[in-house]
Amino acid sequence: MRSFLFASFLFFFTGTLKAQSDSIYIRKIANEVFRHSTAYSNLHTLTKTIGPRLSGSAQTYTAEKWGEEVLKQAGADRVYLQKAMIPHWVRGGRDEAAMISGKNRQNMAVIALGNSVSTKPGGITAPMILIRDFDELEKRKDEIKGKIVFYNHPFNLDFVWMFNAYAEAVPYRVFGASRAAKYGALGVVVRSMSASTDNFPHTGAMIYNDSFPKIPALAVGLQDADKLVAAAATQKDLQLFISTNAHSLPDTVGYNVIGEWQGTANPDQFITVGGHLDSWDPAEGASDDGTGCVQSVEVLRALKATGYKPNRTIRVVLFTDEENGGRGALAYSSEAKSKKEKHIFALESDGGGFTPREFSFKGAETQMASIQPLVHLFVPYGVTAFSMRGAGADVEPLNDSTGALAAELIPDSQRYFDYHHAANDVFEKVNKREVELGAINMAALIYLIDKYGL
Amino acid sequence: MRSFLFASFLFFFTGTLKAQSDSIYIRKIANEVFRHSTAYSNLHTLTKTIGPRLSGSAQTYTAEKWGEEVLKQAGADRVYLQKAMIPHWVRGGRDEAAMISGKNRQNMAVIALGNSVSTKPGGITAPMILIRDFDELEKRKDEIKGKIVFYNHPFNLDFVWMFNAYAEAVPYRVFGASRAAKYGALGVVVRSMSASTDNFPHTGAMIYNDSFPKIPALAVGLQDADKLVAAAATQKDLQLFISTNAHSLPDTVGYNVIGEWQGTANPDQFITVGGHLDSWDPAEGASDDGTGCVQSVEVLRALKATGYKPNRTIRVVLFTDEENGGRGALAYSSEAKSKKEKHIFALESDGGGFTPREFSFKGAETQMASIQPLVHLFVPYGVTAFSMRGAGADVEPLNDSTGALAAELIPDSQRYFDYHHAANDVFEKVNKREVELGAINMAALIYLIDKYGL
Repeated sequence: MRSFLFASFLFFFTGTLKAQSDSIYIRKIANEVFRHSTAYSNLHTLTKTIGPRLSGSAQTYTAEKWGEEVLKQAGADRVYLQKAMIPHWVRGGRDEAAMISGKNRQNMAVIALGNSVSTKPGGITAPMILIRDFDELEKRKDEIKGKIVFYNHPFNLDFVWMFNAYAEAVPYRVFGASRAAKYGALGVVVRSMSASTDNFPHTGAMIYNDSFPKIPALAVGLQDADKLVAAAATQKDLQLFISTNAHSLPDTVGYNVIGEWQGTANPDQFITVGGHLDSWDPAEGASDDGTGCVQSVEVLRALKATGYKPNRTIRVVLFTDEENGGRGALAYSSEAKSKKEKHIFALESDGGGFTPREFSFKGAETQMASIQPLVHLFVPYGVTAFSMRGAGADVEPLNDSTGALAAELIPDSQRYFDYHHAANDVFEKVNKREVELGAINMAALIYLIDKYGL
Repeated sequence: MRSFLFASFLFFFTGTLKAQSDSIYIRKIANEVFRHSTAYSNLHTLTKTIGPRLSGSAQTYTAEKWGEEVLKQAGADRVYLQKAMIPHWVRGGRDEAAMISGKNRQNMAVIALGNSVSTKPGGITAPMILIRDFDELEKRKDEIKGKIVFYNHPFNLDFVWMFNAYAEAVPYRVFGASRAAKYGALGVVVRSMSASTDNFPHTGAMIYNDSFPKIPALAVGLQDADKLVAAAATQKDLQLFISTNAHSLPDTVGYNVIGEWQGTANPDQFITVGGHLDSWDPAEGASDDGTGCVQSVEVLRALKATGYKPNRTIRVVLFTDEENGGRGALAYSSEAKSKKEKHIFALESDGGGFTPREFSFKGAETQMASIQPLVHLFVPYGVTAFSMRGAGADVEPLNDSTGALAAELIPDSQRYFDYHHAANDVFEKVNKREVELGAINMAALIYLIDKYGL
């Protein structure tokens, strides 16, 4: 009995010491970031000097150069590029439009969805049919032919975590066109994936089903969506005009930009932290995902500045083409597998630079068991839970290909979809301290997993 | 042993049932607020139609009328006014100024502090002395006479909860003038109480010590504060010009606006929820404290809309004069004491309409013991802790006078001091969903305390 008690005491004692030294080290990281972070100034350059950087655009390449530069400045031992063939879809000019035609003529704020085809030159005019959800589409399939389908599936406001509302609504953006084309629709207009109070239309990726004709697809701002609903209620024969020049060019070359910090004890084991460098074209890609990029760079800078020596090799990856292909993530995870690299952990930040709330993971129970006791170390910095909501598009493929635990920073989600893929996703909507808090939590998680393994 | 086990089982069972029915009811409140809240539209009217409402200003009275109206609309049984004599300080026009004089002439963004006296007409010019903290002031007390003291005490960025940085810096705003006047200073300029990246100067209350001459006091924007520091380093004889027409008029009449919802079982017991109706004058008082007012009104509206019947009488109080006197809180707590009202609980929201994080309390251990087990009910809505950081200026006096448990909603604090008492505290900086989440947590806390007592 005595030896048992003694062992318990020792465990308690060393456990407490360990927790204390870790909490002191995380405090040191926090001070470093709050006092000397370059995340916000890097974000300013990325958003204001480079701007939107959709796959294949000229800014894809200036952003890659910027990424190489900031990773070198942050102290990476080695910075290199990893090739991926990326889609090259272009908007084809700013003269996209939608309009209620006829005597109650009214312009609508619209934006073509990524991957959409164009209308015929000069646009098309057709009767509009208002469809609330796919059930209604199926019920009314005989009424679709020759019409423009307006999907008005609103965000479900009851969700607290707004990504749940997004997940529920986004199939209309992604699959709505082909599901309507199956029944002879000529085009679709989708209510924007947002709960904002403004009228910015929100773009984003859509996917055609090759079994059906490719028809043009646009998103409409929320205020105008409500106007369309009101107009549909009073005008039985409402005619909608839509026009877009969007089209796809042949795939082109893009690169993941990778900064490596060589490990000491286990340099052949890898820990990845990243965000995606590409963004949609209407704005600056500040919250999606400039903040994830500059936070990931800051993790490297801050850990180096505090004198940390990593056991494992830490890679900061600025992924290419998250938005309309995921080809960067695929290249990274495929190469990791083909080279039989030993990946321990991969973390991304792609929920905006808002105040941190959680980390969400995708991995095995055993991996979670070793990190779950660490959550208390994050509470002073805003992360109060480790959840299993998934780990995000750029790191989940690595979990699939190598078994690495994958994770995503979960910031507060209330504002994200106000700006997501819309013209107001700009630097000015980002708070310096919130981005820094995210970087602090990310650096702390990388530090702990590098130190203790999984 | 068997009876013990049985009792435990019963306790567990009824405890679980109780928690379930409460979590279901809170979900009902949340749905009501997310779907039908008037908080955001009420805030729009308060900020855009009424605007700034400093004690004694014309808007004090239009805001009171607005408060009466929204409380009636929200379903109060009785709406009435509670008188308080409030200070009436006026800025005296917009031509406040500060300038580095001489050949390197440079204008500074400044704003007079609340309660400050004016300079002599036309302003004053005097040598500037840069002082970092009160220790330095004391050490250099012989150098102060005939000069303008520039207090450059920056926000301590190491704090995560920014109210700690505010608490550390605010004595320079509140007491800096008299402490400098003691040694013969002619005026003071204070670095704004903020960690923002812009140059808006932030006003706020200051207090004179009647033992020393009253000297004018202004706050300067952070970018200009840094310019003053740089200028002081290169110009030994830097002369500063300051000018303000600020002055105090005799006290005037203001009112707490109170909406009462009669209790059923214990109508003579009171639960208070409120925010303050007054605001500083440079902007719209959106985050400070329009949001607290509209959230408090929403608590009443939403609880009524969900069919709740309160056991105790619930009072929504829109306090007058929090900013430069606290006379509304004093009137409310004094009357409660003199009438021997039985106050159970008082909650305020005055930390901005940002995403909720905690509730903070001031009260007895026994009171805390009965609510601490409820925290898990709030976690799905963002409040993850009940802390003891104090309860805020409008409800703490009620704790002092009646022993009521007092509490404050603690929203995320990163953005609050970007806007606090500055020209950018406007409606556009408020996110609809974040305000609503705050109201949901507030309504849930009022519901639980009304239902179970303390």
